Amino acid sequence: MTGTFGQLFQLSTFGESHGPAVGVILHGCPPRLAISEEEIQRDLDRRRPGQSKLVTQRKESDTIEILSGVFEGQTTGTALAMMVRNADQNSGAYDHLKDLYRPSHADWTYRAKYGIRDHRGGGRASVRETIGRVAAGAVARKLLATVADIEVLAWVSQVNTIDATIDSDTVTLEQVEADPTRCPDPEAAARMTTAIEKARSNGDSLGGVVTFVARNVPAGLGEPVFYKIDADLAKAMLCIPAAKGFEIGSGFAGTRLTGLTHNDPFVPGPDGQPEMATNNSGGVQGGITSGSTIIGRVAFKPTATISSEQDTVTTDNKATKLSAKGRHDPCVLPRAVPIVEAMALLVIADHWLRQQQTDVLPQL
Amino acid sequence: MTGTFGQLFQLSTFGESHGPAVGVILHGCPPRLAISEEEIQRDLDRRRPGQSKLVTQRKESDTIEILSGVFEGQTTGTALAMMVRNADQNSGAYDHLKDLYRPSHADWTYRAKYGIRDHRGGGRASVRETIGRVAAGAVARKLLATVADIEVLAWVSQVNTIDATIDSDTVTLEQVEADPTRCPDPEAAARMTTAIEKARSNGDSLGGVVTFVARNVPAGLGEPVFYKIDADLAKAMLCIPAAKGFEIGSGFAGTRLTGLTHNDPFVPGPDGQPEMATNNSGGVQGGITSGSTIIGRVAFKPTATISSEQDTVTTDNKATKLSAKGRHDPCVLPRAVPIVEAMALLVIADHWLRQQQTDVLPQL
Amino acid sequence: MTGTFGQLFQLSTFGESHGPAVGVILHGCPPRLAISEEEIQRDLDRRRPGQSKLVTQRKESDTIEILSGVFEGQTTGTALAMMVRNADQNSGAYDHLKDLYRPSHADWTYRAKYGIRDHRGGGRASVRETIGRVAAGAVARKLLATVADIEVLAWVSQVNTIDATIDSDTVTLEQVEADPTRCPDPEAAARMTTAIEKARSNGDSLGGVVTFVARNVPAGLGEPVFYKIDADLAKAMLCIPAAKGFEIGSGFAGTRLTGLTHNDPFVPGPDGQPEMATNNSGGVQGGITSGSTIIGRVAFKPTATISSEQDTVTTDNKATKLSAKGRHDPCVLPRAVPIVEAMALLVIADHWLRQQQTDVLPQL
Amino acid sequence: MTGTFGQLFQLSTFGESHGPAVGVILHGCPPRLAISEEEIQRDLDRRRPGQSKLVTQRKESDTIEILSGVFEGQTTGTALAMMVRNADQNSGAYDHLKDLYRPSHADWTYRAKYGIRDHRGGGRASVRETIGRVAAGAVARKLLATVADIEVLAWVSQVNTIDATIDSDTVTLEQVEADPTRCPDPEAAARMTTAIEKARSNGDSLGGVVTFVARNVPAGLGEPVFYKIDADLAKAMLCIPAAKGFEIGSGFAGTRLTGLTHNDPFVPGPDGQPEMATNNSGGVQGGITSGSTIIGRVAFKPTATISSEQDTVTTDNKATKLSAKGRHDPCVLPRAVPIVEAMALLVIADHWLRQQQTDVLPQL
Repeated sequence: MTGTFGQLFQLSTFGESHGPAVGVILHGCPPRLAISEEEIQRDLDRRRPGQSKLVTQRKESDTIEILSGVFEGQTTGTALAMMVRNADQNSGAYDHLKDLYRPSHADWTYRAKYGIRDHRGGGRASVRETIGRVAAGAVARKLLATVADIEVLAWVSQVNTIDATIDSDTVTLEQVEADPTRCPDPEAAARMTTAIEKARSNGDSLGGVVTFVARNVPAGLGEPVFYKIDADLAKAMLCIPAAKGFEIGSGFAGTRLTGLTHNDPFVPGPDGQPEMATNNSGGVQGGITSGSTIIGRVAFKPTATISSEQDTVTTDNKATKLSAKGRHDPCVLPRAVPIVEAMALLVIADHWLRQQQTDVLPQL
Repeated sequence: MTGTFGQLFQLSTFGESHGPAVGVILHGCPPRLAISEEEIQRDLDRRRPGQSKLVTQRKESDTIEILSGVFEGQTTGTALAMMVRNADQNSGAYDHLKDLYRPSHADWTYRAKYGIRDHRGGGRASVRETIGRVAAGAVARKLLATVADIEVLAWVSQVNTIDATIDSDTVTLEQVEADPTRCPDPEAAARMTTAIEKARSNGDSLGGVVTFVARNVPAGLGEPVFYKIDADLAKAMLCIPAAKGFEIGSGFAGTRLTGLTHNDPFVPGPDGQPEMATNNSGGVQGGITSGSTIIGRVAFKPTATISSEQDTVTTDNKATKLSAKGRHDPCVLPRAVPIVEAMALLVIADHWLRQQQTDVLPQL
Repeated sequence: MTGTFGQLFQLSTFGESHGPAVGVILHGCPPRLAISEEEIQRDLDRRRPGQSKLVTQRKESDTIEILSGVFEGQTTGTALAMMVRNADQNSGAYDHLKDLYRPSHADWTYRAKYGIRDHRGGGRASVRETIGRVAAGAVARKLLATVADIEVLAWVSQVNTIDATIDSDTVTLEQVEADPTRCPDPEAAARMTTAIEKARSNGDSLGGVVTFVARNVPAGLGEPVFYKIDADLAKAMLCIPAAKGFEIGSGFAGTRLTGLTHNDPFVPGPDGQPEMATNNSGGVQGGITSGSTIIGRVAFKPTATISSEQDTVTTDNKATKLSAKGRHDPCVLPRAVPIVEAMALLVIADHWLRQQQTDVLPQL
Repeated sequence: MTGTFGQLFQLSTFGESHGPAVGVILHGCPPRLAISEEEIQRDLDRRRPGQSKLVTQRKESDTIEILSGVFEGQTTGTALAMMVRNADQNSGAYDHLKDLYRPSHADWTYRAKYGIRDHRGGGRASVRETIGRVAAGAVARKLLATVADIEVLAWVSQVNTIDATIDSDTVTLEQVEADPTRCPDPEAAARMTTAIEKARSNGDSLGGVVTFVARNVPAGLGEPVFYKIDADLAKAMLCIPAAKGFEIGSGFAGTRLTGLTHNDPFVPGPDGQPEMATNNSGGVQGGITSGSTIIGRVAFKPTATISSEQDTVTTDNKATKLSAKGRHDPCVLPRAVPIVEAMALLVIADHWLRQQQTDVLPQL
């Protein structure tokens, strides 16, 4: 259990920023799912560097290769392995980081944990590791669309102090992808663009919030106690580099309401199942999906790598100054969107599969 | 993996609100740890109903019995089982809930998932399930104090719109326990008490925030990628009934800072290791502890059970009204404090044990 | 993962020979399975001490109590906990074992591992631990009978040098239970009885072999590579105290055949699926069930506890002599039969549930 | 848990016989272990096809590439990924197998499980999958030699009816590698060679037994109940293609002894710890290592693929005949030796790491 994610739809990633390759093994994908490298590449292209001026200019095509688990265009049910070769391994650009710790990076903590550190581009802590997750998430996306018409969508809802106004019930992928910020509120997106460009030119960086929804999720997914679906989503999201917070439904804001205003009243639904008049629960009650849309938010801190001068220490504990070079994102939010989607897809696919083994006896 | 928590310090709980008993099996506690039922009872007494006017008046002494794994006052290293008999099984009080779903409870979602529901007191979704966690957490507390002088402390930092002012570096257990609210800001505590009593008399309920710290945690605990210690804490906290959000360090507020103001500058530490001048990271960088105090916050929604009349539906999908009877907490925050501590203790104990198998080869 | 068995039908046991109780938590049993304490007690009664002169005379009724997970006679889908109180805790009978190690027992190895040892009746290494497994196995038996008409049956096929002749295709539970040896070959059973009684009176003990079958198991259960169903059965059986060997199908004897005589030819089956003319595979090919009956064999060593004098050492490494007192089985085989069945049932239930999540997409 | 092996030293393999590549991800290898591709290649070369006339002549150099987890010649502690490209993908040789099931292969069972089958060379069921295990085993070998001077060695002790005579206490790797059969009894090896060559020319195949030892394993490795080290070894060995049986120590033969002759008497050891005068236990008592050499045996059936004509059925359930073409091993035993070693190494490394988290408190 050292390095896997998920119980039935289970993945394991490998690779460092400046090693030969990054990739993923995915176990538990049901057999006979039609899947192509093109479908996977589509999500990877949304995550890849260099796609706009707002993100890192590292040159990577991030071309996926399926190594196993697909035969004649369909999954075989056995280990599905995928890999991307690292192309732009200009590791010399990191020589100035070898003997010091970048503030608020994983440099020091990796050194403290392992006693050894691959200093090139963050090594294993690099966001390049998420390529494997996004590839596996694309498989989950196809599975969930096939079996249950489930759709997962994320977008940038806040950058620094700029809050967007978005109708989470109606927003579409096309609207999200219409702007490089991945904020589907055009007015806010324009202000975010300006703010990000200004931060870059100032040698500074910005954080923000990604909101995600999962639509058409049937009621009943999730386990009581230790595998609540919102707990698994919380873990999934905090596993993304730079994530510092998670909330489901009303979240922290809901703590300022009272039971009378916060509870979601049930109303009779058209198909014999109850519906909820509001969705402060965010689609989850008692850790199990209610049939309402799942909605959650993920907080991302400002990028730790900035080109302005900062105080830090050398690996032999001497005070020094750092002005980071290399290519980095002044704001991770636009590229975080497909990663948040991938993590949500992986969690929901896992729980959807779990439910297949729960619901095997005749109804009372 | 259906029902366990933790990888090396691993527990599994059982029991329903109105069944014969609730309890826990704990695997992986190292042998030769001195532990007594009294030490475990101490934490359970902080969680138990009826301890003040602010919480549910259900009559339970919650007396722990160790069933296995302790021999002559020390752990044996094998399965440690503990149990509490349910005393106040007045399940007749729940008959009026049998044929309807309580809003924002797990009634409907359990029915959707399992096709069967123990309606008495929430069944498995009851907060009584956390007794096993708090008992296991007390063992973790003893272990961490013994091996590493680690201390975990939580308190109520917000109830509804009342925000407390607390110095997280200096606050003590005695200060937390000094007031039934478990808010160590006396002025805020007084206002919280008034607000909770008013909510109860109004048939309403309140939510809020619990803050926790873990002090003296060595640098290096946590795993990259999928077992980041903050991701495991997020999952742990969202596994608590009524929790709706989690943040580590600066969390959501930190998204409004910039890299320059958010990064924690390193300064040379006295023992040859770096220290951080600030702690926006909350003690975790790249998913691994930095040596700074871990600090996090957990959002709890207002209690779903309220005695005011609410709209809901019957199990055969007809509109109805509900005015809940039975004994419930008008505000779960005071009793959530020891549960938050337990979950943090369980996560840290797990990662501390993991690190023992990481750090086995000579330093370079 | 320190102490659980199974992935989806997952259990965890607790308890020592002379502690307050032994028991089990079972996660993953599907909801709405009708189950009663009587059905579980039936299997426990076949495992219990004192049932005949051939086994230990420890006085235990081994009465099961369901603590959670069953509501109004049906499983709820949540944690199913069961417990048996230890009645005959005459631990004084073990005082003479406190300061020495019994040969071929777990006394020394537990001391080496844990640095602490509950010497009373073997502590956690006692076969009383298997009560929880047999109870969980009874639930698996009910599940598999309900969903797939699967039947698991075991019997004693060898005691010491006495080999029984049994038709594994036709033997029934009634035939197995007809004799206290649980050997359904009456002639061999009579000789086994004599041999066991003679061993007891000689202060000696006997080993032997238990054979088990699983009938009506559908083709397709088991996973390639690391969760082959025969590999999981091997592990399950070696987890039984005193087990020293496992074989599936032709096993060790099959190594002396050649491919031409060992391969199982396919023949067209009546329902459009292939059948096999022979069953050297033991119902498993490539780790996955073939549709033929699963058949395997488990080797049990002679009981380590004997009343004859043996050489051993004290805990401070001095040579000494031991003549073991206390109540023990001169031959574990008759009581091993329900335990072997339980372990097979647990493995098959786990894999049956796994297959529900594999087979979710339309057939090609 | 669908596709991983081990708890702390945990691997996951991928790849099919005729896909692009086979490989492995290994989690949990401690950081700062010096390891090179050459050390890993050494074990792979013992496993690879074409190394002698006794094995398959498929042309594969099986050249390992480390993809991640090693930096400047040392492990980083993070995911260690390794891959071998398949070179000899002459999948046309398998066209005649597309529409039928090979007897005693996994063809039918994969079809029954997955509803789809990669018929080329056995697909995922191919023994090429074990490349990843042998590569990970080589890392375990280096770890165990480094931390504890543990040595694992296996050899062929039986082929068909030819039994070798070998002193398991003194046999060396050089003696095993001296003959292509990997049987270190030269007289038996010569007879085995003749028998294997005769079987090949007859279109037949042979099975046999591999014996393995693990020397210098400290007392105390293994867990009670469900992670007994011999149970984990049993599972590990039955996970090897064609394995049909496992025994530890005296195994099945020991069932014919009595307690008096089978028990291993303790004698005072020179270092204050007990030693055993005999080793019927095979180095394991109660599932935990005793300090004696671990010794076990694995039964391998005759290779299922033979070129003689056999009865079988087509995928549409018609009777047919098969004379298998393609390159296959007339006897898998010589190539099974490094695989058995790898599986033993993986299990022992896992338990050695586990023990580091058990033994953390001061001795009494």
